Amino acid sequence: MPKQWYNLRADMKEQPDPMINPATMQPATEEDLYPVFCKKLAHQEMDAETRYVDIPEEIQEMYKIYRPSPLCRAYNLEKALGTPAKIYYKFEGNNTSGSHKLNSAIAQAYYAKDQGLTCLTTETGAGQWGTALSEACSYFGLGLTVFMVKVSYEQKPFRKAVMQTFDANVIASPSNTTNVGRQILANDPHTGGSLGCAISEAVEKAVSTENCRYVLGSVLNQVLLHQSIIGLEAKKAMDILGEYPDVVIGCAGGGSNLGGLIAPYMQDKLTGKADPRIVAVEPASCPSFTRGKYAYDFCDTGKITPLAKMYTLGSGFIPSANHAGGLRYHGMSPILSKLYHDGYMDAVSVEQTKVFEAATFFAKHETILPAPESAHAIRAAMDEALRCKETGEEKTILFGLTGTGYFDMTAYTAFLEGKMSDYVPTDEDLQRGFDSLPQVPER
Amino acid sequence: MPKQWYNLRADMKEQPDPMINPATMQPATEEDLYPVFCKKLAHQEMDAETRYVDIPEEIQEMYKIYRPSPLCRAYNLEKALGTPAKIYYKFEGNNTSGSHKLNSAIAQAYYAKDQGLTCLTTETGAGQWGTALSEACSYFGLGLTVFMVKVSYEQKPFRKAVMQTFDANVIASPSNTTNVGRQILANDPHTGGSLGCAISEAVEKAVSTENCRYVLGSVLNQVLLHQSIIGLEAKKAMDILGEYPDVVIGCAGGGSNLGGLIAPYMQDKLTGKADPRIVAVEPASCPSFTRGKYAYDFCDTGKITPLAKMYTLGSGFIPSANHAGGLRYHGMSPILSKLYHDGYMDAVSVEQTKVFEAATFFAKHETILPAPESAHAIRAAMDEALRCKETGEEKTILFGLTGTGYFDMTAYTAFLEGKMSDYVPTDEDLQRGFDSLPQVPER
Repeated sequence: MPKQWYNLRADMKEQPDPMINPATMQPATEEDLYPVFCKKLAHQEMDAETRYVDIPEEIQEMYKIYRPSPLCRAYNLEKALGTPAKIYYKFEGNNTSGSHKLNSAIAQAYYAKDQGLTCLTTETGAGQWGTALSEACSYFGLGLTVFMVKVSYEQKPFRKAVMQTFDANVIASPSNTTNVGRQILANDPHTGGSLGCAISEAVEKAVSTENCRYVLGSVLNQVLLHQSIIGLEAKKAMDILGEYPDVVIGCAGGGSNLGGLIAPYMQDKLTGKADPRIVAVEPASCPSFTRGKYAYDFCDTGKITPLAKMYTLGSGFIPSANHAGGLRYHGMSPILSKLYHDGYMDAVSVEQTKVFEAATFFAKHETILPAPESAHAIRAAMDEALRCKETGEEKTILFGLTGTGYFDMTAYTAFLEGKMSDYVPTDEDLQRGFDSLPQVPER
Repeated sequence: MPKQWYNLRADMKEQPDPMINPATMQPATEEDLYPVFCKKLAHQEMDAETRYVDIPEEIQEMYKIYRPSPLCRAYNLEKALGTPAKIYYKFEGNNTSGSHKLNSAIAQAYYAKDQGLTCLTTETGAGQWGTALSEACSYFGLGLTVFMVKVSYEQKPFRKAVMQTFDANVIASPSNTTNVGRQILANDPHTGGSLGCAISEAVEKAVSTENCRYVLGSVLNQVLLHQSIIGLEAKKAMDILGEYPDVVIGCAGGGSNLGGLIAPYMQDKLTGKADPRIVAVEPASCPSFTRGKYAYDFCDTGKITPLAKMYTLGSGFIPSANHAGGLRYHGMSPILSKLYHDGYMDAVSVEQTKVFEAATFFAKHETILPAPESAHAIRAAMDEALRCKETGEEKTILFGLTGTGYFDMTAYTAFLEGKMSDYVPTDEDLQRGFDSLPQVPER
């Protein structure tokens, strides 16, 4: 297991544009972040120079419970597809949170504890991040309030129960426990919520509570740093097997898994050592990369966070109730946005039914029931493998299997019963989101 | 990964009493079993001589998807308990079925396919066995009908959906699709069902369908043979660590996990090589070992299966709706029954609330959310570790963590909300079960 995380920014030729403090319209400083993030995490957020960051021993200890995670070759899937391609996946579902989210949850909870904080707040969409953070907080003895996107709260009562088992306080968002929640409810009492809303509520709660900070499971630079362990392990395992991927594929909501998985391969690209194709897969219902704008935007719907330059649909974009709750976010990691903008990676969007076809096909052949989020990557990996079948190319494909779908059976049932919708936003829908983009002076 | 299973019977000084054909009241022959089981499994059921059985390559291939399973040291649990004991667990939950059941499901599906059968029937309680068999049947291309105990069917809608994802036909039992089901419903239209009922229905369906056989996830000798891979792997891993358990603990419903986990350690006991303490843990609500009778009984409620000599509460005993559905069975593996009767192992029973206290405590410290069944073993392991704390003994404890509790959140919620009952059958309740025991001539 790696003892250091890798900070992709240290090898980027051009840095992502800085976060902007919306109050001053000036680049945010590390200190600007202290009311929201604990100090070491604020430092990691801003640090573009340190290439390798030591993983504290306490974090390594907890990682050891479930890491290194398995790198699997999908022999049965390859056979079922009849492809000459070799398909590998890095499986992050072997822990109770059921996903890769635990990698950053442990780190963020540890640093909060280390600073003497007593509680944290966060948001969760599909519930994977909330579960992961509940586990980590329970382990380190921190209190936790989770704002869970209302549509997920209703679709996934058992997810809520898991978080409660780990002593978390789970609140459906938007809620009437915060100003921003009350305001959003006043505008639309029947909204299913969004990650953007839930973030606003969680940040408000954190800054108005003593000894409390806010933590986030994706988008942030610090999260990509922590998640780099996925890619570092994958590369090490593939090195041992004498393999190097031609294509690396990951699903992308806020970018936590994708950024982690591709980190060492992107390093090879940035430093000219190798040139694998890197593919982000997003839902057609929430297409930040493929149909979004590269612009400064708020990370939340309530417009209380700093502004980040990223591919975004606008913080006012409320995605449809797609079953991949973890990918239902208007923005995208600023690091990945910059790399995409500069041509270092590709992006594709896929429709929900196609994703679940891939999920059930994968489950039957590989015996793992994937999370809907992960199934986006499976879809793209299968499509790549099927192209290889046509061309005869023996490509090596690596994709991230971020988690398991045990708490997504409502979605699977909808698919099995043929009741799944493939809603794709119209240009007018998108325009409404873009209209919410803030005016930021040219820099 | 071991390439052979170990057949405990080859080392038993006295064999379990033979199965009896209820039509003739004579010992059942291998051929008597052919209408119900496929031939190779009927052979394994009767074979008390072959010590090591080669695992066919096709089975090894599928095992490789998730095996060897991890042997973990519960460092954090030890620390939280403040015990000088070392606690190890063999974790079988790292596959989509969420439990050890897949080990035998793969074997049984493979042998059925190998014989040219086209479909199988089975029953499931908690749903772990049904899920495992659905996966295995889907993998080998066999049709499957699962009779799911009605109380579980209602408590666990998502379990049902997982099985359906793997193309299984899932029916709540008792159902009106079989004679025996209709009869049970006529007697008690509101019954929540039991494993015994569901077995009757599945057997009836199998023998009345062409090219179809019945398979069972526990109790049978063949199942213990397949599950021996758990113990063989555990022993190998502990050997590498230079460890040997003083105590081996497993939960016991029909005995599949317990029999598998203890197999090589029981071999040491039987051959005089070592003398670890072996402990079966059962729910106080369904106490086959601790309050049952060692007698010939039917394996099912409908009284259509052969008679087995075992610890039993009587096939007429309908257990209360305890949340550990997989332990809600009136009987017990004949092999384990014989060993228990001959003094080779101990048994304890534990109440439900205490089990869930252990489950949540374990989850918080080891970050794995255990199945309620598995939590019985956790409870006993924690109690043993706490005794060591009092005495200062540095015992090495090994227990079987059979699976995960993702589909048991209704139970966890009941526990968290303080709504869990600790029903224990009265002597009168048990007597009603014993009254259903068949009259079998003394042999």
